[in-house]
Amino acid sequence: MHRYRSHTCAQLRKSEVGQAVRLSGWVHRVRDHGGLLFIDLRDHYGITQIVADPDSPAFKVAETVRGEWVIRVDGEVKARTAETVNKTMPTGEIELYAGEIEVLSAARELPLPVFGEPDYPEDIRLKYRFLDLRRETLHRNIVARTKIIAEMRKRMGEEGFTEFSTPILTASSPEGARDFLVPSRIHPGNFYALPQAPQQYKQLIMVSGFDRYFQIAPCFRDEDPRADRLPGEFYQLDLEMSFVEQDDVLGTMEPVLRGVFEAFAEGKPVTQKFPRIAYDVAMRRYGSDKPDLRNPIVMEEVSEHFRGSGFKVFAGILANDPKAEVWAIPAKTGGSRAFCDRMNSWAQGEGQPGLGYIFWRKEGDKLEGAGPIAKNIGEERAEAIRQQLGLGEGDAAFFVAGDPKKFVSFAGAARTRAGEELNLVDRDRFELCWIVDFPFYEWNEEEKRVDFGHNPFSMPQGGIDALSGQDPLSIKAFQYDMVCNGFEIASGGIRNHLPETMVKAFEIVGLDRATVEERFGGLYRAFQYGAPPHGGMAAGIDRIVMLLVGAKNLREVTMFPMNQQAYDLLMSAPSPATTTQLRELSLRVVADKKPG
Amino acid sequence: MHRYRSHTCAQLRKSEVGQAVRLSGWVHRVRDHGGLLFIDLRDHYGITQIVADPDSPAFKVAETVRGEWVIRVDGEVKARTAETVNKTMPTGEIELYAGEIEVLSAARELPLPVFGEPDYPEDIRLKYRFLDLRRETLHRNIVARTKIIAEMRKRMGEEGFTEFSTPILTASSPEGARDFLVPSRIHPGNFYALPQAPQQYKQLIMVSGFDRYFQIAPCFRDEDPRADRLPGEFYQLDLEMSFVEQDDVLGTMEPVLRGVFEAFAEGKPVTQKFPRIAYDVAMRRYGSDKPDLRNPIVMEEVSEHFRGSGFKVFAGILANDPKAEVWAIPAKTGGSRAFCDRMNSWAQGEGQPGLGYIFWRKEGDKLEGAGPIAKNIGEERAEAIRQQLGLGEGDAAFFVAGDPKKFVSFAGAARTRAGEELNLVDRDRFELCWIVDFPFYEWNEEEKRVDFGHNPFSMPQGGIDALSGQDPLSIKAFQYDMVCNGFEIASGGIRNHLPETMVKAFEIVGLDRATVEERFGGLYRAFQYGAPPHGGMAAGIDRIVMLLVGAKNLREVTMFPMNQQAYDLLMSAPSPATTTQLRELSLRVVADKKPG
Repeated sequence: MHRYRSHTCAQLRKSEVGQAVRLSGWVHRVRDHGGLLFIDLRDHYGITQIVADPDSPAFKVAETVRGEWVIRVDGEVKARTAETVNKTMPTGEIELYAGEIEVLSAARELPLPVFGEPDYPEDIRLKYRFLDLRRETLHRNIVARTKIIAEMRKRMGEEGFTEFSTPILTASSPEGARDFLVPSRIHPGNFYALPQAPQQYKQLIMVSGFDRYFQIAPCFRDEDPRADRLPGEFYQLDLEMSFVEQDDVLGTMEPVLRGVFEAFAEGKPVTQKFPRIAYDVAMRRYGSDKPDLRNPIVMEEVSEHFRGSGFKVFAGILANDPKAEVWAIPAKTGGSRAFCDRMNSWAQGEGQPGLGYIFWRKEGDKLEGAGPIAKNIGEERAEAIRQQLGLGEGDAAFFVAGDPKKFVSFAGAARTRAGEELNLVDRDRFELCWIVDFPFYEWNEEEKRVDFGHNPFSMPQGGIDALSGQDPLSIKAFQYDMVCNGFEIASGGIRNHLPETMVKAFEIVGLDRATVEERFGGLYRAFQYGAPPHGGMAAGIDRIVMLLVGAKNLREVTMFPMNQQAYDLLMSAPSPATTTQLRELSLRVVADKKPG
Repeated sequence: MHRYRSHTCAQLRKSEVGQAVRLSGWVHRVRDHGGLLFIDLRDHYGITQIVADPDSPAFKVAETVRGEWVIRVDGEVKARTAETVNKTMPTGEIELYAGEIEVLSAARELPLPVFGEPDYPEDIRLKYRFLDLRRETLHRNIVARTKIIAEMRKRMGEEGFTEFSTPILTASSPEGARDFLVPSRIHPGNFYALPQAPQQYKQLIMVSGFDRYFQIAPCFRDEDPRADRLPGEFYQLDLEMSFVEQDDVLGTMEPVLRGVFEAFAEGKPVTQKFPRIAYDVAMRRYGSDKPDLRNPIVMEEVSEHFRGSGFKVFAGILANDPKAEVWAIPAKTGGSRAFCDRMNSWAQGEGQPGLGYIFWRKEGDKLEGAGPIAKNIGEERAEAIRQQLGLGEGDAAFFVAGDPKKFVSFAGAARTRAGEELNLVDRDRFELCWIVDFPFYEWNEEEKRVDFGHNPFSMPQGGIDALSGQDPLSIKAFQYDMVCNGFEIASGGIRNHLPETMVKAFEIVGLDRATVEERFGGLYRAFQYGAPPHGGMAAGIDRIVMLLVGAKNLREVTMFPMNQQAYDLLMSAPSPATTTQLRELSLRVVADKKPG
């Protein structure tokens, strides 16, 4: 017989009754029932119930074992009686009568219980991650993560994509977030950078004559702690295709990701045909470029109903600023003063002066708009608003006024708030969409200059002609995001493969040809030697896994995460370098950050 | 029709004759045949021949295109005449008559030709890697690499392994090679390290209750340039299993790797049952722990034939040193004075005093040993040696004498040399074996102390009893290598999962409990809380791909390698950091390595 096991802890069934078998695993829990000891023995695969009776030679050892000890058990498989069969366990029809127990590894008193997985402080969970990972939920999340990635890989293969790894020790890329640097010992004073994404490499792969590349790519950003980001490293499903237009990328990736969602949605509905929503439209309808489409609220402009109206605040705003608009956030079932006041208080808590509203109620047979705004604008205008928004008795609408650029994100938050408070959001579904036509440039208010909106390597719509003739802020890019339930889960674009167009695009943000050559030398050089039109995208794997397993935190879907301070409590990293290491790297640590 | 192509350059067949199609790709080569222009159009998938005749509206553009321009071609598929069919090309039965050509991207004069792939200096190839990668051999190698990795992944999945990624920003591990360090911005003066291998993490995964883990793992070592290593990063097929003994790991992984070899051997024979050779035996037979078993030469000890013989040099060595032995390197077909003298000269070039030999020739009807040694030891002893080695007419044997520890690596080199010079090595096969029973400790002559032989985390054979009672240098480890054609392609062991045994093992090399706790805190702590017996291995992916595609250099199977000086010529990395970056990292570059 094998030294440790003849079966896993998930394998034994009625068919094995009477057999002499051997199991190994962790003691999940021990119970004493009238002198009999019951041990739930657990391994990666499942749990089997062990019985040690006082007559068994195994009993003496069984009495000593505690939770999370690793033991080997030899014994005979017996059928459970009808009353003791456990239908919720795959091995619930049998139990193993122990004849011999060997302790393979004892455990000290547990700093973190595994059985029952009670809530525990996160620093303990991270320091003893090897115990935390034995807990059912986290164990299952991590295995699900692997399966989700395998599903992505399988589907990408079926679509004709080839997987390539790109370098992890690479060049610093001055755009985007902050790089992690790696000092070179052989080239003193010089540094590699860890890739923020394989952006330049994947484009180089296309220029190198490959087609349909993908990678489960580790990416690195040295960012300040943020609740919705893992510090340090994260994973992307990164891909690129040659000889494609935007429709090709969207048309290829939509079924791949829909398929991945469907495979792990556990029956929850998944959007079949992803709507394609222009950035400008998304901002006006949802106040966000990552709208949660489970929330049925769609905002509408209602400026005309307020222009010259008796509600002087809005009328004044509209009169004084040609850019000003009034938007309505219709809230079905929100038509009570209590709810409207709650929203108003919430808005004040967000730093707003308040949140105007109308709600509709029956007064006798008559449907009437209620609240201060309705009073001020009068019955006719209130009714026109109601009709435009398609609202009825018991519904409400909230209003924001001013320059949409300034209020849009608050309007989006109010839409979210109303949808959630009113339980209009169906949590048990995955609503996916594409956001397209992002602005290529944006106005950097701080530095008072035009800057890239997202990815400087995207192709501007209209190409070099648009760059030469158009107001930069009106130029759209062939750039797109995939959004699920309010989270951006993927982002991509058709790339600018024409070196002269690239130079022109950077010129507009104030970077000259020499700077482009210096900063993006590899890519810029490559474009001089026959570059195919190409485009692609990257999907955030950690986020997708989190959505699919219903976790609340990225650390719940990551095997060995650092804490929010980018410290690894399990391995005690980072840690000071030795004097020898620093000398070899020609570095000195400057304790005081200020010069001198 | 699609903007860029209706078909790839590998798709068109006779069945498409008469169709109007669209292709895009790179101009592989242009030829002018009696006024007709022939363009070989290439993409990732293949090549199609384009014809532009002077009457075509496409002709004017066709005249301007040059090698590696990217073009789109619209035209009609025509069957080639019987004489012009090219049977070596999948598209060789047709050609595409161009009606319209659009230049998608022009190319400057090429610094590196793609067509015909003539030899070129490596620095040019690396700087213009995007052109180099378009060349047929490299392109094919890189695609093969991907397929080999996919095959590994598939087979690991079939064996029940689950793929997990382990952190890349982790703790410095003071054992082994030099770490790459990553300064932490948030924790000034502290550093992460890039993993030399996921050794500690994969053991932690087992302690975390998972089973059968694998990973296509990026690994990082900051080593000085070596011809047989890629600087910086390399990839391992890394794996670990719980509740296993050595036989389980070997028995699981042998079919996986044999299968991978068979799938890509292109008909070359692959060892079916890998011999398991003890380290000591391998050293005595082959003079190496990574023997090339394609070389049929097996060394033998022949001390007794020389003891007290007339060959005074060897007789004296044997008499004066109880550890001394004489080994023979039998060389079939090497029985000419010219060859034996050549081997002798080679040995002198290697810093040896020479290489004694006997060769056998017919003198009349009589087979006789020739050469100075044969003369000195006499006919009878020479004949006894011949019979022991199973040699005959036209064969030779070479001899080395002394302390085997000191001459063994030279003996191994002589075995290799003789086998290659005599063409005894069948290059067209893959000979695989396991080397087992490595010594757990070795003598560090420099520091005059006992040190770990290989992996300090391995389980010593005999466990804590052996550590307590045995001469450390006689203890073997449950540690094994897989060897193919003279290269170590994988290495592994059964791990020491018992904390007290771990402490004892480190004590013998002079490291106390506190040091173990400090250096291997995560793992040491984990072993206190129920650790399963476990073991695994890691296979070098780059090396395996190199063997399978028959490349001579790791850079020929790597997409974007650095050069031998660990410099990335394509991306210009490493490079100086900005003052801001250094300030954020609390670092100063010390130009002069010496203090002051």
